[in-house]
Amino acid sequence: MAAIIKQLFIPFSADKKLYYSLRNILGFYPTNIALYKQAFRHSSVAHEIKEGVKDSNERLEYLGDAILSAIIAHHLFTLFPFKDEGFLTKMRSKLVSRMQLNQLSVKLGLNKLIDSNLEASYNSSVNGDAFEALIGAIYLDKGYNTTYHFIRTRIIQYHIDMDAVETKETDFKSKLIEWAQKEKHEVKFVVATELGTGYQKQFVIDVVIDGEVIAKAQHYVKKKAEQYAAEQALLLITSNS
Amino acid sequence: MAAIIKQLFIPFSADKKLYYSLRNILGFYPTNIALYKQAFRHSSVAHEIKEGVKDSNERLEYLGDAILSAIIAHHLFTLFPFKDEGFLTKMRSKLVSRMQLNQLSVKLGLNKLIDSNLEASYNSSVNGDAFEALIGAIYLDKGYNTTYHFIRTRIIQYHIDMDAVETKETDFKSKLIEWAQKEKHEVKFVVATELGTGYQKQFVIDVVIDGEVIAKAQHYVKKKAEQYAAEQALLLITSNS
Repeated sequence: MAAIIKQLFIPFSADKKLYYSLRNILGFYPTNIALYKQAFRHSSVAHEIKEGVKDSNERLEYLGDAILSAIIAHHLFTLFPFKDEGFLTKMRSKLVSRMQLNQLSVKLGLNKLIDSNLEASYNSSVNGDAFEALIGAIYLDKGYNTTYHFIRTRIIQYHIDMDAVETKETDFKSKLIEWAQKEKHEVKFVVATELGTGYQKQFVIDVVIDGEVIAKAQHYVKKKAEQYAAEQALLLITSNS
Repeated sequence: MAAIIKQLFIPFSADKKLYYSLRNILGFYPTNIALYKQAFRHSSVAHEIKEGVKDSNERLEYLGDAILSAIIAHHLFTLFPFKDEGFLTKMRSKLVSRMQLNQLSVKLGLNKLIDSNLEASYNSSVNGDAFEALIGAIYLDKGYNTTYHFIRTRIIQYHIDMDAVETKETDFKSKLIEWAQKEKHEVKFVVATELGTGYQKQFVIDVVIDGEVIAKAQHYVKKKAEQYAAEQALLLITSNS
């Protein structure tokens, strides 16, 4: 009954389009639409709600990242009853890699819902961040079990090829350097800038090939930023060749 | 009714003692006692159930680690509505640090339930591992919400001082080096050995003070093994001074 009232009510509201887009993506109607609006709000367009705190998707991304990891951990635990924790850990980190999440986000069409001031080209991690934030929003809106069901039925079953993930290489930096040596290109990883201070400090890494910046990524851990940037560079190279 | 039958039945079984110990620790009766027995079974006493796979607590530890992280992430998200994701990430890593989990495990009395062939002194991480494995067992036995309730009411409310955690220093290696310089001791971090190969490779790090090994820890990431070992060394130094 409540659901019917909501369906009658929503088409008159300003959030109508988002509401129906989410119904298609999620398989259910959102209850607290404000959570989902926040999940798609990049910090470049967010407002300060208190000193130093914006109504952007970053807190939801933090939450969604943890929930996603837990759900994937359980899924793999069940799927591979005779594999050890080293294998499971490795599989999980491949499944939730920045690149994987960026691709999933685009497959689901989340990139069309993101509210941002950035140019998309150098910032595809915005897509993966929004995916994680969406997981955070679903979890707060509907709870753990619905989130688990969504990930299992709408993500893993449709979009994940476990065999391909299992054989996938993940040291993207080494892979890029190998490619460069083979193809006679010069590749450099450069710290373009550092954002923030103390525990908030993030490294922005440029991948420079033959003097040209072709990919960029940021992370609190420099090595991770390098991996993300190398992963993006490899995707560009693969899609152009 | 089912619960009453179970209570009448269990005292005759061989698992009686574990059953009642768990009732006291958890606040509820376990349903699948086999999960909890596995959670307390260190790999040193486990049996091979299939080639390369033991009935030890390591898979449950992997699962419990992820579930614990998700629950702590949500708890902090709610507790600190105006803190950014950098703060929340830092707080979480302090709350689920190896040292914190080892201490919690002993406070709950889990160390008395662990089945292991190891000498306890150099291997206190066995306690923290069992704590994580217990979380994995609760999750599989009772689901996410019961696990959340257990962590909130039996762990955080009783055993965690959030203010103390917030101000806690976490770079243990730097702290130990500072202490050594001040107190005129020589401190070294030595790779004692490497276990396994490929993605399963773990580093065993010794903390050597004035030529004597006083702490030991292992991890897939060398820097983390150093941090764990330094954390243990600092605890020994503090408790002896």
